[in-house]
Amino acid sequence: MALRDRVRDVVDGRRFQRFVIAVIVVNAITLGCETSTALVGSYGELFDVLDSAALAVFVLELVARLYAHGPRFFRDPWNCFDFAVVGVALLPTAGPLSVVRALRILRALRLVAMVPSMRRVVTALVKSIPGLLSLSGLLVLMLYVGSVVAINLFRTSGDPRFGDLGATVLTLFQITTGDGWSDVMRDLMATRPWAWVFFLVYLLVGSFTMLNLFIAVVCGAMESEAAPSRAGMDDRVLDEVRAQREEVRALREEIRALRFDPVGDRR
Amino acid sequence: MALRDRVRDVVDGRRFQRFVIAVIVVNAITLGCETSTALVGSYGELFDVLDSAALAVFVLELVARLYAHGPRFFRDPWNCFDFAVVGVALLPTAGPLSVVRALRILRALRLVAMVPSMRRVVTALVKSIPGLLSLSGLLVLMLYVGSVVAINLFRTSGDPRFGDLGATVLTLFQITTGDGWSDVMRDLMATRPWAWVFFLVYLLVGSFTMLNLFIAVVCGAMESEAAPSRAGMDDRVLDEVRAQREEVRALREEIRALRFDPVGDRR
Amino acid sequence: MALRDRVRDVVDGRRFQRFVIAVIVVNAITLGCETSTALVGSYGELFDVLDSAALAVFVLELVARLYAHGPRFFRDPWNCFDFAVVGVALLPTAGPLSVVRALRILRALRLVAMVPSMRRVVTALVKSIPGLLSLSGLLVLMLYVGSVVAINLFRTSGDPRFGDLGATVLTLFQITTGDGWSDVMRDLMATRPWAWVFFLVYLLVGSFTMLNLFIAVVCGAMESEAAPSRAGMDDRVLDEVRAQREEVRALREEIRALRFDPVGDRR
Amino acid sequence: MALRDRVRDVVDGRRFQRFVIAVIVVNAITLGCETSTALVGSYGELFDVLDSAALAVFVLELVARLYAHGPRFFRDPWNCFDFAVVGVALLPTAGPLSVVRALRILRALRLVAMVPSMRRVVTALVKSIPGLLSLSGLLVLMLYVGSVVAINLFRTSGDPRFGDLGATVLTLFQITTGDGWSDVMRDLMATRPWAWVFFLVYLLVGSFTMLNLFIAVVCGAMESEAAPSRAGMDDRVLDEVRAQREEVRALREEIRALRFDPVGDRR
Repeated sequence: MALRDRVRDVVDGRRFQRFVIAVIVVNAITLGCETSTALVGSYGELFDVLDSAALAVFVLELVARLYAHGPRFFRDPWNCFDFAVVGVALLPTAGPLSVVRALRILRALRLVAMVPSMRRVVTALVKSIPGLLSLSGLLVLMLYVGSVVAINLFRTSGDPRFGDLGATVLTLFQITTGDGWSDVMRDLMATRPWAWVFFLVYLLVGSFTMLNLFIAVVCGAMESEAAPSRAGMDDRVLDEVRAQREEVRALREEIRALRFDPVGDRR
Repeated sequence: MALRDRVRDVVDGRRFQRFVIAVIVVNAITLGCETSTALVGSYGELFDVLDSAALAVFVLELVARLYAHGPRFFRDPWNCFDFAVVGVALLPTAGPLSVVRALRILRALRLVAMVPSMRRVVTALVKSIPGLLSLSGLLVLMLYVGSVVAINLFRTSGDPRFGDLGATVLTLFQITTGDGWSDVMRDLMATRPWAWVFFLVYLLVGSFTMLNLFIAVVCGAMESEAAPSRAGMDDRVLDEVRAQREEVRALREEIRALRFDPVGDRR
Repeated sequence: MALRDRVRDVVDGRRFQRFVIAVIVVNAITLGCETSTALVGSYGELFDVLDSAALAVFVLELVARLYAHGPRFFRDPWNCFDFAVVGVALLPTAGPLSVVRALRILRALRLVAMVPSMRRVVTALVKSIPGLLSLSGLLVLMLYVGSVVAINLFRTSGDPRFGDLGATVLTLFQITTGDGWSDVMRDLMATRPWAWVFFLVYLLVGSFTMLNLFIAVVCGAMESEAAPSRAGMDDRVLDEVRAQREEVRALREEIRALRFDPVGDRR
Repeated sequence: MALRDRVRDVVDGRRFQRFVIAVIVVNAITLGCETSTALVGSYGELFDVLDSAALAVFVLELVARLYAHGPRFFRDPWNCFDFAVVGVALLPTAGPLSVVRALRILRALRLVAMVPSMRRVVTALVKSIPGLLSLSGLLVLMLYVGSVVAINLFRTSGDPRFGDLGATVLTLFQITTGDGWSDVMRDLMATRPWAWVFFLVYLLVGSFTMLNLFIAVVCGAMESEAAPSRAGMDDRVLDEVRAQREEVRALREEIRALRFDPVGDRR
């Protein structure tokens, strides 16, 4: 038990955390350098050594924190994130999982978990998600319904952007972001002169819904930011008014006493 | 009457609604699969059976709800929406109405009417529309006036995007959304070197108006969200202050009584 | 004087205003139809007659309103707008002023002046402009400074988008709106590999300033919308509290009277 | 000391500042004209003379202000900006520093420092930056991590936009601004059919973070704008209520006096 406490002191200490941050940054830079074939040609082995060293540090750190905190370790979602990111790095990177090698850089996101101000920002981001689920569901439903309508209307036009359901969903997502929607429409209108009706309806309904999704995020953010300070102010006014009411009530008692016991002989 | 009540209990019950939601989702997936020629080749008949079955369920459900609620059924706009979507599916899909076949997927939007949280979101969206009618009218007017000016200025340039009034309105709508406006302008400036004046004026006025349309939506949303909680707080302060005033008034009566009837012998 | 009053009653009456609105709408549709060569071929003379009739109605209406209201007529900016739009239509449209013919449709904007709800929206838009002058000035300055830097850096690259100062200003305006900025940058980077530095700095500074321009508009709109209702609420609380203070002061007088004149014999 | 005071009076006077503003504007126009080879051909020498004269005025002005204010001069960041902009102009513009010549127009930004309303706007802009550092850091981290993932996934596709880390960062920045992202994706999907997964994830996460960056700016601006006026109002209510409480307390004293000293003989 004493060892566990000592490990916890080390692991949660500022010095250790700064060291881990430094390792993360160095590792991120190394992984960035590894994308240059020229640099890999000259220093490839150094990068491999540094990467393995960083991974070893991360594994040791995680083991130490697991030992120090016990099963409570997994209650903090940030720790689960750390565990997943480091765990993935231990998978074999050859064969069908070679894409995992490309994801090693995700370790750099551990920086977010280590720097308190960034951690707060991301926590706030994540907390704003549940309030958006209904609207997001609506957008996904719109995208699906719009895609099935679009593929039925435009499939026979020969445009590969409406070739199958997947391509159509991508095309409608592109139209929702407003990127090059007019090119898609003009190409279609060569063979489907009424295509503009679909695009107009979809763009207006879609952007109106997106606007409301956006407003929901803004309103939520403002509420949670402005409410405490405002409420605090209102509470001060209310407290003051209530204190005064007590004062008046006491005054009434005083007068009542005066009425039935005018000379104040009780004192 | 007893039968009608029993039907209403079934129709408005959770179990029945969940069943209908399940049918909607299955039907939406089926209609999505039908867009793939490969899948239709293998399972085409199954899809047709499933689609007919879903339609039969919807028709029976509507008839039951119509019977249960009577003419009041049409007072709820959501019911009218259900009725229209299912009714459309019963139209003959051959011949000139073949486009209706492409709209069968709109049934999936019934999901919105069935899931309360989505229903709330859409109701809020629809309610925000009336406040925007003036600004939208202004935008439509701007689009029309801008298009007539543009076609008069640029028709003789031979650009098909300014070929007739319809094409010009589409082009100006595209410019308003900011998608590829510079390509349109540069193409025109080859023959109309002063075209940039029109584009600059239209873009500035248009985006300024759009910005205000957007702000109107945001303000409306915030007002309706923030107002109740704020007003409730203010009302609490006001109630407190008024209650205290009553207290003071009662005190005054007490003192008046003391003055003209100092000994309190009335009691 | 009696005649002038009668004219004013007619001119400001609902019936007359509805008639003018109808003429504006018909004239707007006519001018829209005139953009179609096919329609002009069949009904060209009818359109000319309708246009002349509408113009005659507008001139008569303006003369009547000028007579009815006298020189005060020009105090209302909406009247000046009406006067300018109709006056322009009387200019000769042949020769160098043929562009004026394309602007006849601006008469349709008179609709804004005639429909109260649109009038309010536009008045609000115009009122929000002065608060934006500083930020707009900053944007114009940035655009000018950025363009002079860009033309000095990129003129020799042979790109016509940086050919002279006018073209450069247009290109930078395009980049500020975010439309196709990456194409412009990639084309330049073929000969100027460091061009991305300029684009990055300009985009970041520009969009940050635009964002703040936008926020200034939103804040202004919210302030002016929320302030009256909030202030009204606060004033009600304040009034209530002050009224109560008067009550307490009166109470004090009462008690003072009681102290020096306990029996209330004055009454 | 007397001379220094007199110099300060001149330097800080309205007349001198107006003169400097005029020189800045004339210099900005001259530098703009210098970008036209035609104008340089005709008036090139005049421009050189005007530019040198403006520079001389700026140098003299700075020397005078430095003399007048002493070392305190450098405490105001605006003065440092003036000093840097003018100092740069004195560097030799031949040879490797020829890019500096293109930056001479930055002197026009001194206008911002001279016009109070613009100065306020820029000060507000700059003050809003620190609150955004965490979110900006997050965006930069996302851009870096996304780029390393993208280059590992797409380098072998032969697309020059994913050729090296620098190009990939630029491409991902372009995708974040939403300009032509669908072209980049479609080109990639010819050889990497699963590329859309990366684009979808990156776009959703990126635009959600950007949206929150934006909201942070808006909230900050509103807080700092709305808070003083609101707080002022609340303080007035609070002051009023407290004053009244004092009144009631005084009243109590009065009554207490009445109780133990009913006839008021003290007076």
